[in-house]
Amino acid sequence: MTRDELLYKWQAPQPVLDCGHVRLVDVMGDDERIEQVARLSYGKGTRSVSDRRHLLRYLMRNRHTSPFEQAVITLDMKMPIFVARQLIRHRTASYNELSGRYSEMPEEYYIPDERQVCFQSTDNKQGRGDTLTDMDAGEMADLMGASADNAFRDYRILLEEGVARETARMVLPLSTYTQWCMTMNLHNLLHMLALRLDPHAQWETRQYAEAIADIVADWVPLVWEAFCDYRINSVTFSRMEMDVLRAMLAGQATDLDALSEREKKDFFKKLQLTDES
Amino acid sequence: MTRDELLYKWQAPQPVLDCGHVRLVDVMGDDERIEQVARLSYGKGTRSVSDRRHLLRYLMRNRHTSPFEQAVITLDMKMPIFVARQLIRHRTASYNELSGRYSEMPEEYYIPDERQVCFQSTDNKQGRGDTLTDMDAGEMADLMGASADNAFRDYRILLEEGVARETARMVLPLSTYTQWCMTMNLHNLLHMLALRLDPHAQWETRQYAEAIADIVADWVPLVWEAFCDYRINSVTFSRMEMDVLRAMLAGQATDLDALSEREKKDFFKKLQLTDES
Amino acid sequence: MTRDELLYKWQAPQPVLDCGHVRLVDVMGDDERIEQVARLSYGKGTRSVSDRRHLLRYLMRNRHTSPFEQAVITLDMKMPIFVARQLIRHRTASYNELSGRYSEMPEEYYIPDERQVCFQSTDNKQGRGDTLTDMDAGEMADLMGASADNAFRDYRILLEEGVARETARMVLPLSTYTQWCMTMNLHNLLHMLALRLDPHAQWETRQYAEAIADIVADWVPLVWEAFCDYRINSVTFSRMEMDVLRAMLAGQATDLDALSEREKKDFFKKLQLTDES
Amino acid sequence: MTRDELLYKWQAPQPVLDCGHVRLVDVMGDDERIEQVARLSYGKGTRSVSDRRHLLRYLMRNRHTSPFEQAVITLDMKMPIFVARQLIRHRTASYNELSGRYSEMPEEYYIPDERQVCFQSTDNKQGRGDTLTDMDAGEMADLMGASADNAFRDYRILLEEGVARETARMVLPLSTYTQWCMTMNLHNLLHMLALRLDPHAQWETRQYAEAIADIVADWVPLVWEAFCDYRINSVTFSRMEMDVLRAMLAGQATDLDALSEREKKDFFKKLQLTDES
Repeated sequence: MTRDELLYKWQAPQPVLDCGHVRLVDVMGDDERIEQVARLSYGKGTRSVSDRRHLLRYLMRNRHTSPFEQAVITLDMKMPIFVARQLIRHRTASYNELSGRYSEMPEEYYIPDERQVCFQSTDNKQGRGDTLTDMDAGEMADLMGASADNAFRDYRILLEEGVARETARMVLPLSTYTQWCMTMNLHNLLHMLALRLDPHAQWETRQYAEAIADIVADWVPLVWEAFCDYRINSVTFSRMEMDVLRAMLAGQATDLDALSEREKKDFFKKLQLTDES
Repeated sequence: MTRDELLYKWQAPQPVLDCGHVRLVDVMGDDERIEQVARLSYGKGTRSVSDRRHLLRYLMRNRHTSPFEQAVITLDMKMPIFVARQLIRHRTASYNELSGRYSEMPEEYYIPDERQVCFQSTDNKQGRGDTLTDMDAGEMADLMGASADNAFRDYRILLEEGVARETARMVLPLSTYTQWCMTMNLHNLLHMLALRLDPHAQWETRQYAEAIADIVADWVPLVWEAFCDYRINSVTFSRMEMDVLRAMLAGQATDLDALSEREKKDFFKKLQLTDES
Repeated sequence: MTRDELLYKWQAPQPVLDCGHVRLVDVMGDDERIEQVARLSYGKGTRSVSDRRHLLRYLMRNRHTSPFEQAVITLDMKMPIFVARQLIRHRTASYNELSGRYSEMPEEYYIPDERQVCFQSTDNKQGRGDTLTDMDAGEMADLMGASADNAFRDYRILLEEGVARETARMVLPLSTYTQWCMTMNLHNLLHMLALRLDPHAQWETRQYAEAIADIVADWVPLVWEAFCDYRINSVTFSRMEMDVLRAMLAGQATDLDALSEREKKDFFKKLQLTDES
Repeated sequence: MTRDELLYKWQAPQPVLDCGHVRLVDVMGDDERIEQVARLSYGKGTRSVSDRRHLLRYLMRNRHTSPFEQAVITLDMKMPIFVARQLIRHRTASYNELSGRYSEMPEEYYIPDERQVCFQSTDNKQGRGDTLTDMDAGEMADLMGASADNAFRDYRILLEEGVARETARMVLPLSTYTQWCMTMNLHNLLHMLALRLDPHAQWETRQYAEAIADIVADWVPLVWEAFCDYRINSVTFSRMEMDVLRAMLAGQATDLDALSEREKKDFFKKLQLTDES
């Protein structure tokens, strides 16, 4: 897909959550550019890796990440403030966000779908567990909507009384939608996606990561494939886990004492084996 | 002041706004370290600048900024979320913030003092102008307090129903206090202070900049003095303004046509002269 | 000029020094993009600034620098290693450099033109002063050429004996040409240019800054004009200098005691007045 | 070990290569600080992880890397320019390097020990293979020494003729020793060490990584242990390798077709099994 075709295909805002979106603004560089840059940089060392796909996979596998910095993307994103606060922790990017000091904030806020109103997870301190019963979930979603409604009513009153925008906005909830233009290179974007596509990332933030991933898969298909094979779907074992694994493969007695209870559980999960197997 | 004396003096949280604070956690390096680093780096070139104060002023004046990166500070800060959102735009720092996914947010929110409830500025699109009348200001501050109260009540209900913390917090207002540990080098800190001590910075954010400035003035007194003389209290004139200024000094007729109305006003303000003078 | 026109115009390597070059590889964003991003970010606050040129000048003048980060450029550069070592200090960029571990370094090194073989400056610790006499300059340039020749002869011997490239290259001189692909956003590029176009920058490095400046002036003509008016050709006066300046304009006796000898000289130079005037 | 004890123990320059060194200048933060910061940030979520060691290992294992940014180190390093050029690619650090424009470069250059004069590796494009025979290695090392000697002789002549230092230094070899003061946070330092302790890193650069590692192991012993267990000695398997591994563990026929020849070799090496096993 050429740059023009890509920009044409993704020109419309891609809806995310109830009022948000991800829209492709521009890209620079592609699979071919990354290949060329790597060949400049590694010179003779890359001649033996004959074709583009093979070379890009080699780079990803060996964490030769700098060529991936030579491809850059600009996205227009609209998301709730609590999502924006997570994403902006990725510092190696350029953000221009709608300013509540210069502009009135549009009356748009996120209300979770009932399926996303869940109990606090018991085993994951940062996450959500089972969904509430339908009735309770609906009630809670309604409460959240009413709460945001009240806050925006107070915001309007403050503005009508002439209070400065920068002051009035303090009453707005973290569910308020904001918007920004974000420019990031592919290396940093892939790092962000690796973290935000993870099941431990907050569900709402993950929706944005997935919307971006769709664009990236189209933009740099060979890099994306390599990223899935060598990063997203790769598995890392600690020194202690490697000891166990090597013993298992050698058919020796395995000693799990070096692993904590949590690590044991995770170890078998990584191998997709049950504890008893 | 030695490092120990500094840490002792500033060990207590310094109150900022109604519930916030700035607290010194640690520092590394000082005026002397910066001098030593500069002498390593510039070698013979710095011999002619005989004493420490003179050398530090030379560095600041000539924007040889890299030695200032060799001094580092860690601060514990508690501030409303809308302030945190402004400060975190300073990317060249390390932040560890209280997470509303892992922890319940404490029921603390900022309510502006009546003197800070002001009208939207008419000539400054991002700022505040005159204070509302006492009665109106009090009423608006009360409204903001009640609005935050309502939001926290909704937050508590959601938590009591077992809703995940990461979901419940979406109803919290931008005035909610958050807390972080921030580590930043002196060069980046001075850049942040130059922007946030500016009268155009939001008043609440400025209070944090001023609290930090007090610590910095104690920590690196010679650098701070140079920063005030060559940065904070320096004045920059554009190419067009320099043409006018040179004509004025030569006693020639001045042609202000190259300046916009706004620039003319600013020009005379920089010179602390009235338009007619 | 459209992106295609720009890429076409600058597609050929622009020669710099004796064997170096700067070549435009790609750009993303332009004056218009920066305007759009600023309008998204500042919303209503930018409506009053009616046209593009006016808005871009407003951003530059008030150091609202973040929109300039949304335009990005990729350059292919070939330069002596001592120049590369200065430029790479600009950390906020992505570099992919020819690796002397993977590749044999091409036998190309910089020999200064005779006019650039100068005496050590007496008043500028880091710079060069008057040119040597023609004869001496020629002799010294010849010496430098012979010295590099010898080093490359040793390099070839080491390679012929089978010594690893990463070891053999240690004998190569700092004048050896290297090459890289550099991607940088416009904000950081302008900062780099402000420092490297300065008369205090090393002459050789300045040639690269000037070659880049030519491209930038074509790429974002309105930003470039604003940058020249508000940055490159602006003048900054310290607190002490402002005191003197205001006294001068008020026709009062001026007290220069707060300025060091060097500062006095610089002050009058900034005003383009002689000491006696 | 307290900060004072650490600074005392490592106050002397630790020799590296023939004329280089690594010297500890200062540290800020330690294992305890990182624990405290994590507890602030994750609040209740960290209560269940009862002790410091356990918590630090949890952070490392789950790549919760931001608390490691709150510990900072300053090192004084002296190394050949070709090593400095590799290290400075780690951009998230502050460097103040001896300037060859301000100072004459001391006549010190690196000559590899004979055991380090090796053939170009045949299977590793960037590396070295077997050592040359003693006689050849000695001859080559002598050649390198003579080559640097010649270059420094030319440098001296140029300086004696009065040529500017910034010009004269162009003849110096990449083996010339330079010196810098480097400040870096622990997160970035560990990332640098992970790359530079790797057997693929150039041997000379690895010596610096190892000298730094010794200091870090003393400074933050619990973090260092976790780093070794979960990063340095961990092993990552790609999606395709995991398919094979799971089949192996299930006692099924393994299909290695998805792995390239190189990957197959690496796969068995990771498992420390021979191809036939």
